[in-house]
Amino acid sequence: MEPPRKLLNAAGRCVDEALSGTAAANAGLALLRGHRVVLRSDLRPLRGRVALLSGGGSGHEPAHAGYVGAGMLSAAVAGSVFASPPPATVLAAVLTLWQAGVSGVLFIVKNYTGDRLNFGLALEQARAQGVPVAMVIVADDCAFAQPSKAGRRGLCGTVLVHKLAGALAEEGHPLGEIVTRVTKMAEGIGTLGVCLAPCSVPGCVPSFELPPGDMELGLGIHGEPGIKRLKVGSADEVVEMMIHHMTDPSSQSHLPLTSGDMVVLCANNLGALSCLEMAVVTRAAINCLAEGRGLQVARVMSGSFMTSLEMTGMSLTVMRVDQETLQLFDAKTMAPAWPNLSSVGLSGRNYIVEPAERTSAADIAPNEEAGPLGAVMRKVLETVCASLLSLQEELNALDRASGDGDCGNTHALAVRAIQEWLSSHKVPSCPGQLLLALAGLVQERMGGSSGALYSLFLTAAAPLLRGCSDPAAWANAVHAGTEAMKRYGGADPGDRTMLDALWPAVEELIKLQSAPAGGEMAVLQTAVQKAESGAESTRHLTARAGRASYIASERVTLPDPGAVAVAAIFRAVFVALGGTK
Amino acid sequence: MEPPRKLLNAAGRCVDEALSGTAAANAGLALLRGHRVVLRSDLRPLRGRVALLSGGGSGHEPAHAGYVGAGMLSAAVAGSVFASPPPATVLAAVLTLWQAGVSGVLFIVKNYTGDRLNFGLALEQARAQGVPVAMVIVADDCAFAQPSKAGRRGLCGTVLVHKLAGALAEEGHPLGEIVTRVTKMAEGIGTLGVCLAPCSVPGCVPSFELPPGDMELGLGIHGEPGIKRLKVGSADEVVEMMIHHMTDPSSQSHLPLTSGDMVVLCANNLGALSCLEMAVVTRAAINCLAEGRGLQVARVMSGSFMTSLEMTGMSLTVMRVDQETLQLFDAKTMAPAWPNLSSVGLSGRNYIVEPAERTSAADIAPNEEAGPLGAVMRKVLETVCASLLSLQEELNALDRASGDGDCGNTHALAVRAIQEWLSSHKVPSCPGQLLLALAGLVQERMGGSSGALYSLFLTAAAPLLRGCSDPAAWANAVHAGTEAMKRYGGADPGDRTMLDALWPAVEELIKLQSAPAGGEMAVLQTAVQKAESGAESTRHLTARAGRASYIASERVTLPDPGAVAVAAIFRAVFVALGGTK
Repeated sequence: MEPPRKLLNAAGRCVDEALSGTAAANAGLALLRGHRVVLRSDLRPLRGRVALLSGGGSGHEPAHAGYVGAGMLSAAVAGSVFASPPPATVLAAVLTLWQAGVSGVLFIVKNYTGDRLNFGLALEQARAQGVPVAMVIVADDCAFAQPSKAGRRGLCGTVLVHKLAGALAEEGHPLGEIVTRVTKMAEGIGTLGVCLAPCSVPGCVPSFELPPGDMELGLGIHGEPGIKRLKVGSADEVVEMMIHHMTDPSSQSHLPLTSGDMVVLCANNLGALSCLEMAVVTRAAINCLAEGRGLQVARVMSGSFMTSLEMTGMSLTVMRVDQETLQLFDAKTMAPAWPNLSSVGLSGRNYIVEPAERTSAADIAPNEEAGPLGAVMRKVLETVCASLLSLQEELNALDRASGDGDCGNTHALAVRAIQEWLSSHKVPSCPGQLLLALAGLVQERMGGSSGALYSLFLTAAAPLLRGCSDPAAWANAVHAGTEAMKRYGGADPGDRTMLDALWPAVEELIKLQSAPAGGEMAVLQTAVQKAESGAESTRHLTARAGRASYIASERVTLPDPGAVAVAAIFRAVFVALGGTK
Repeated sequence: MEPPRKLLNAAGRCVDEALSGTAAANAGLALLRGHRVVLRSDLRPLRGRVALLSGGGSGHEPAHAGYVGAGMLSAAVAGSVFASPPPATVLAAVLTLWQAGVSGVLFIVKNYTGDRLNFGLALEQARAQGVPVAMVIVADDCAFAQPSKAGRRGLCGTVLVHKLAGALAEEGHPLGEIVTRVTKMAEGIGTLGVCLAPCSVPGCVPSFELPPGDMELGLGIHGEPGIKRLKVGSADEVVEMMIHHMTDPSSQSHLPLTSGDMVVLCANNLGALSCLEMAVVTRAAINCLAEGRGLQVARVMSGSFMTSLEMTGMSLTVMRVDQETLQLFDAKTMAPAWPNLSSVGLSGRNYIVEPAERTSAADIAPNEEAGPLGAVMRKVLETVCASLLSLQEELNALDRASGDGDCGNTHALAVRAIQEWLSSHKVPSCPGQLLLALAGLVQERMGGSSGALYSLFLTAAAPLLRGCSDPAAWANAVHAGTEAMKRYGGADPGDRTMLDALWPAVEELIKLQSAPAGGEMAVLQTAVQKAESGAESTRHLTARAGRASYIASERVTLPDPGAVAVAAIFRAVFVALGGTK
């Protein structure tokens, strides 16, 4: 198995280059020459205050360099990917801070054996040189019901400890007091992670395999698998299971929470989960804590705070807080990776507001009962709906060749809206009124370009079918609708759009203006054939409008899905009106 | 092919739930009941000012809801995933803002046919109701040398337009002036994207296939492939190619840039690129613009700003700025997805600082020439190095079963450091001095827990080999080193660590204190065998210390890699001293 390809220069240089990129991109950061240390570019404000130092293996970006800045860390020390930094690097950072006149240095260390050893070695060496140093070990992992002698691991909760300790240091408290208060606050933090796909150290194969549909619960942040493998559930189920596991009193590493407690939630993307999924997970976690457990969720962070390279997963961190802790959490910081949070309380607020009033065209009740024409139009609509539904997957497949693969789904949205409307409304015998109602439905429920284009077509066609609805009026209406589509959509026939089916059919339908009585179905039949051959002809066209126009033309050899849908609609109308192939 | 599994509740509900999660997590945001609209929770400050409205298909989170807040958008309208929102939703947002007393509404729309149609329809409808509305179309895509009639697409540059227009609206400028100024500033924005793996709409298969090692250049943000498929190059090469393509004067959609121009860079994660890769890419882009093109890179944003679900890729946006534009860029905003940027200029600053001075144990030159013992120790070290290198892949493989798969690589780092040192230094004939030098080397260059543990071993063993170096002294030294390892590492024999090989060997070596002259090799041979059987015995042990302790024990049936390495070192020492199997 080949190691997955990454966007790096060389596995061996990635940590140094990432630190360099981070420092170069942020005016508040600097690099220590010859060391993997990021520190505040201006150390002068630290004089006489406690400096905060953290770090550990790389691969957890933005941790820890992203948390360097006034109000958070003074320096961050980086090891190789997922490897603890050597003590000499830690010591170089400490001595540089000491030389800048700090009153002492607090190490904030995630509880991993390697970090304990290396930061511990550096601490002993720094003390031997007369620097006042202390260490706070963060161990927020809630995975193990019976933790081994190594204890609970340090995970994303470490970022919260950076924040609280940073605010205390900024306020000028002495080292001992910061250690005491931070140690106590850190006891109220619990974290649990879950992943749907593993990550891989640059240059290496993934550290474990996970079949599609499986997930690992209770993982660390160094690519190691979790404590349990399960089938992926819904976001709500996964979050509920995680919060249950984190707060289960039978687990030695649970976070004790009581209804009414005030908490801060941090939903952390471990790397490659989409931001869409993160938002859904965040909603689930807020609901689970607030509604499910009766907790006051005072603040919420959601984003990438402590990653595990490109692991597809997330962790939830819950911190029990009081007003004093919350004030430290809210304190201003210049650290670039700290999010732009509001300090207004979330708990108990209503975040739904009422829209301004307006009425929808689809809700206008018909003035008259459906006559014989109403029944015909109902049958036509039902046939069109059935036809489009039967084509849903085919249209999606055609759309994948040139767009986002949802053309069939988008049409199905319109179909469902029309079907629902048909089941609860009479069909007006005035076609103009029906078209306006359909325009409203399609506009509101179909979405996408097709929704807007169909809506424009129907809106522009409707006025020509108000008074009368003879074949000539239908010809004029369809023509006007097509013209409106061209005008707003910016496309012409030949541009590989739905117009390539619509336009030749409309040119044929114009003949209805002069067709002899009884000859209408023949005209319609030819129009259907023109629409179908027009749709087929789009195989050889280069897209010049719509999303498909952004794809190299030699790639697309299938017909345009929009044109195929239009041809199918014409065919369905023809069939519903009694035509046969 | 099954659609990839995602952490959602249902594909059809994901957009509504994501918007709900975003609004629930941020006190500054609210949801419009019955619509996919996120707006500022407090609309009162907008009274008499221009409101900003943006939006489009979902799947681009944090765009656009994350940019709602004072100083940026007033409201964001969301469509389904990758589908433009219906005009009725846009209109509902406009009318709600209008009811709140705004002086007018500016639409900021990405140039996609669907968005143009739907926002255009809503604009016409709002104007018909008397609301002053204007539209700015963002078209920052630099992919196409000859854009189709649909024009350049709107990409991540839209976020910068939100920011500039938001600052102008906050300053109270009228609608017409904002349109004029923003339109001009938007002309100085260019964007190009690249991806290593596609994304998939929830419930659908990926919209295109990309073999490992290939990448697509010049893609949009709706899952469509790019303009060109290439082999993945290094981060520097890919970035250089992108900037070249973006600024190539022979392309109709290039961004004109001249040496000396001031620019803002936005490195945007399209979804699933690791933050580590993003930092490396950011460095490459800054270098390419500043050193390669002589531009002044005034500000840098790096993160997830306009994603394409979980696409593994990134886009670069470059915006030409003057001091006035920069001031708007720097203006304060409460929008939750805007990063915590410094307003201090980046260009021309030196971000490397000098560390405090210290000397390394490994650099201390030996006082004496290497004697016969020096030559023996050199041979021992060379044999140990060769043995560990030959085991590199085996140790990595063992480590993958229980950790992060880098045990062989970590040992190789130490080996290289020792080999380099041997090639440039004399080996001191005092073993204690040699051990201290090795402790320094291993500590500085090996890293990880093993580096710290070996360093502790060597540091603690060294003092016992200062004066004399007879077999008994070696026995005492090895014993003292092992004790130190136990003390700091928190592990005991039986915990599935390197101690399980080391400890039985050391127990045997103690016999050197009383071994008859000439019997040392026999003792050593037995020690080697004890180390090897100790390493083998770890197959049946449950890890109770080190990273492997976090893995369920039934999962691990291979020996501990650290113990295997220790046994190999003992074997190599024995062989180098003339022992045979």
